Amino acid sequence: MASGDSSKTPQEQQQNVGSTTHEEDFAQGNYGILPLIQSKEKIDRQLISVRDINEKLAKQTIWVRGRLHISRGKGKQCFLVIRHQSATIQAVVCVNENVSKPMVKFAATITKESIIDVQGEVTLAPTPIESCTQKDVELQVTKIFVVSPAEPRLPLLIEDAMRPDEPTSESAQAPHANQDTRLDNRVIDLRTPANQAIYRVEAGVCKLFRDTLDAKGFVEIHTPKIISAASEGGANVFQVTYFKSNAYLAQSPQFYKQMAIAADFGKVYTIGAVFRAEDSNTHRHLTEFVGLDLEMAFGYHYHEVVNTIGDLFTQIFKGLAERFATEIAIINKQFPCEPFEFVEPALRLEYKEGLALLAEAGIQMGSEEDLTTENERILGRIVKAKYHTDFYILDKYPLAVRPFYTMPDPDNPKYSNSYDMFMRGEEILSGAQRVHDAQLLLERVKHHKINIDQIKSYIDAFRYGCPPHAGGGIGLERVLMLYLGLGNVRKTSMFPRDPKRITP
Amino acid sequence: MASGDSSKTPQEQQQNVGSTTHEEDFAQGNYGILPLIQSKEKIDRQLISVRDINEKLAKQTIWVRGRLHISRGKGKQCFLVIRHQSATIQAVVCVNENVSKPMVKFAATITKESIIDVQGEVTLAPTPIESCTQKDVELQVTKIFVVSPAEPRLPLLIEDAMRPDEPTSESAQAPHANQDTRLDNRVIDLRTPANQAIYRVEAGVCKLFRDTLDAKGFVEIHTPKIISAASEGGANVFQVTYFKSNAYLAQSPQFYKQMAIAADFGKVYTIGAVFRAEDSNTHRHLTEFVGLDLEMAFGYHYHEVVNTIGDLFTQIFKGLAERFATEIAIINKQFPCEPFEFVEPALRLEYKEGLALLAEAGIQMGSEEDLTTENERILGRIVKAKYHTDFYILDKYPLAVRPFYTMPDPDNPKYSNSYDMFMRGEEILSGAQRVHDAQLLLERVKHHKINIDQIKSYIDAFRYGCPPHAGGGIGLERVLMLYLGLGNVRKTSMFPRDPKRITP
Repeated sequence: MASGDSSKTPQEQQQNVGSTTHEEDFAQGNYGILPLIQSKEKIDRQLISVRDINEKLAKQTIWVRGRLHISRGKGKQCFLVIRHQSATIQAVVCVNENVSKPMVKFAATITKESIIDVQGEVTLAPTPIESCTQKDVELQVTKIFVVSPAEPRLPLLIEDAMRPDEPTSESAQAPHANQDTRLDNRVIDLRTPANQAIYRVEAGVCKLFRDTLDAKGFVEIHTPKIISAASEGGANVFQVTYFKSNAYLAQSPQFYKQMAIAADFGKVYTIGAVFRAEDSNTHRHLTEFVGLDLEMAFGYHYHEVVNTIGDLFTQIFKGLAERFATEIAIINKQFPCEPFEFVEPALRLEYKEGLALLAEAGIQMGSEEDLTTENERILGRIVKAKYHTDFYILDKYPLAVRPFYTMPDPDNPKYSNSYDMFMRGEEILSGAQRVHDAQLLLERVKHHKINIDQIKSYIDAFRYGCPPHAGGGIGLERVLMLYLGLGNVRKTSMFPRDPKRITP
Repeated sequence: MASGDSSKTPQEQQQNVGSTTHEEDFAQGNYGILPLIQSKEKIDRQLISVRDINEKLAKQTIWVRGRLHISRGKGKQCFLVIRHQSATIQAVVCVNENVSKPMVKFAATITKESIIDVQGEVTLAPTPIESCTQKDVELQVTKIFVVSPAEPRLPLLIEDAMRPDEPTSESAQAPHANQDTRLDNRVIDLRTPANQAIYRVEAGVCKLFRDTLDAKGFVEIHTPKIISAASEGGANVFQVTYFKSNAYLAQSPQFYKQMAIAADFGKVYTIGAVFRAEDSNTHRHLTEFVGLDLEMAFGYHYHEVVNTIGDLFTQIFKGLAERFATEIAIINKQFPCEPFEFVEPALRLEYKEGLALLAEAGIQMGSEEDLTTENERILGRIVKAKYHTDFYILDKYPLAVRPFYTMPDPDNPKYSNSYDMFMRGEEILSGAQRVHDAQLLLERVKHHKINIDQIKSYIDAFRYGCPPHAGGGIGLERVLMLYLGLGNVRKTSMFPRDPKRITP
């Protein structure tokens, strides 16, 4: 697996630019700054990933590429920590028959975060190296080259970015990077083990979403983001200059996934950007986020769809716990949080029941009043205490607080066949049975005083037969924020967008 | 599997609204228009999918939901074709001890494209029913209800939408739906067997792209579509009103996937909308399309990445042929085309070699001149004749015709480490090794006279160490259009956007 390579490449032969020695340096070809890798030659060398270096490689000479995480020069030797993604290993550059004093000095002057290629022998560590992820081995460096140097003054130190948000007793004196500093220097901030893990778990949520729905017979579709009219009533929509006219950015794929149902695709999902021009500067609002949307034709009752979505979340929660235990542990180290609890099948409460639970806790609400964010949170705590779940479904919302395309409750026109789903007391999905009949839809549009001309093609989609259907839209960043207890949606958006930030 | 259900539900008991008889109708509860399915009750009834009805179900009474595709009344009987997605089955409503004359009459008056629930006994067809996909069985209807009626005047007939683009001898006299009619009535157009298949194959391309890259250790990421400055020089970018300021729509995830590399994610991909404000009204340009983008850190030579992408395409082509043979056959029936040929490993030619092949065919070009669309096509034909492949890679483009972030060739500054990939002579991927050094990048930015301030955060991403990397961006709709030989990219975009169309 590992292959020692002792031949010098032409590049390396010209490489002692980092050396400052005046006398002849016997280690001359063994260190330096490489010329820019411009693909001049194909080098037959296997680079071993830091996370794969363990006792099995003991006594082998290997090449590794990583960042210089820490270096500490001490006379005739220099201790380095090499980092690659979430893994770290200690490396020692020590004066011996292959390593000269100038070479040790060179190693000690390499700037933090530089990308380096290191050749070394893997040795067993005399005592476990607690500060590294690879605790049982270290590298005795025989060659060291800088592949891509970091400028000496880092705008954000990785060790600052790696500290918990809340100062702990041991870190109380250390500087904490605030969120804007992190986001302004996102390329460095994202290198922390926690961030490396967060975006792998995020990819996992998408994969579990797709795999679960693929297995249930869903078809992935893509819906346009540029639309001719504000889809849901006109508020909170971004306007685009479209050649000599104007267009808008879709606030959700709602209309298009419903049209796909009217077009016989049966069960569809789509993952993509959605846009909200809301001037909300909170921990949970973004102006652009990733929507995980699904829509599904059903036979006779929308609970067929509610159960499908409930099971989807169960599969996501199970899959995360099974496949991403390592990543979640890394994240929890920087951002401690209570493990996420859920029950199977998912708990479903009716809106009325939710209000009754709140009333028991002394919070009175009108029956057609919407839940405030604060009341959602309180209800979440009540539900958690009573049912031991951080995830639940609240069904049959008042019709008055839902969008025009929501199917009214057949038994009580004040209610509707609609639902929200919650994680740790915050809403992460909103959905409903939709009105699939053009006449009723027109009535609802008029009731909501929406301009019919603007959504003509949407209404027309239901004139030529459409199966009953329901669905929902999930905010990816919120799901991950709440599952991991991260407290701010900007921690789960790689390059977040809010009213005050569109860079980097 | 199939379950006969002879009990009447409360809904059905009140259902003879379609009946026009004056005398007592003994079949009264067996037909009619259902009230709107508003999830009033949970009906314990299994709906069998049309494609699953075969000889094994003979003599069983089943329920099926589908569209009324065709109906033909003839005195005491009425022949129906029920369609669900790509599958069709014949159903017969015939006067007998369960079926009354008014019931046959009702069946004959149901409008085409209405969604219907039909109960019937599966019987073996006396002779194969060539006009249906389920050729060996038919349904003897015992109950028939309209779930969602279609308006009688369809703006686009499904049988017109199902005809080939080029009139065949048998269809020469029949009306052909032109593309705008199809797209204006996209919800009906998408119901054709070919369209049902096209978007399933499209989902397959995305799945194969992800599965192949997941297996190679890539991480899925999401990049912002709203950006603060035009990413690639300012031309062809849509402007967005962003609160009290302006922003732009990303023309590609280029900068962000590179920043993910500088942030140590190693290998990343993203699937999402990309936007081009080009006023190009051609068969292959859209203003919004789905980009399949990837970026990958490599060791010493960008051909590591070129080979990864070449293998990715091989896996996609193989996967489509293996998993979607049925869908591809359905599509070919309406849109005939030569099967897609490819070689493994993928053919890689240098740009110079491409020009030499063109020169042999009498087409002279300057060595730093870009290929025109026409010359790309001619070269595709030459390559196909010589190497028997519809897919190939053209490597080492002239530096002058590539974006500023392209790595120059180390041996000849007029060339670059960049490549395009082609299917049937049309470009479907553009990619390159990128400049990963901030100093060289600044030189290239100045050479291209790009405003440095606008892309500061991008350039800064390379100041703190970045591994050498390369990648590429694929246009999903083009890949599918060319694989299937469909001739127009609007056929592979569910709701296409071009300079003249942003509806439906």
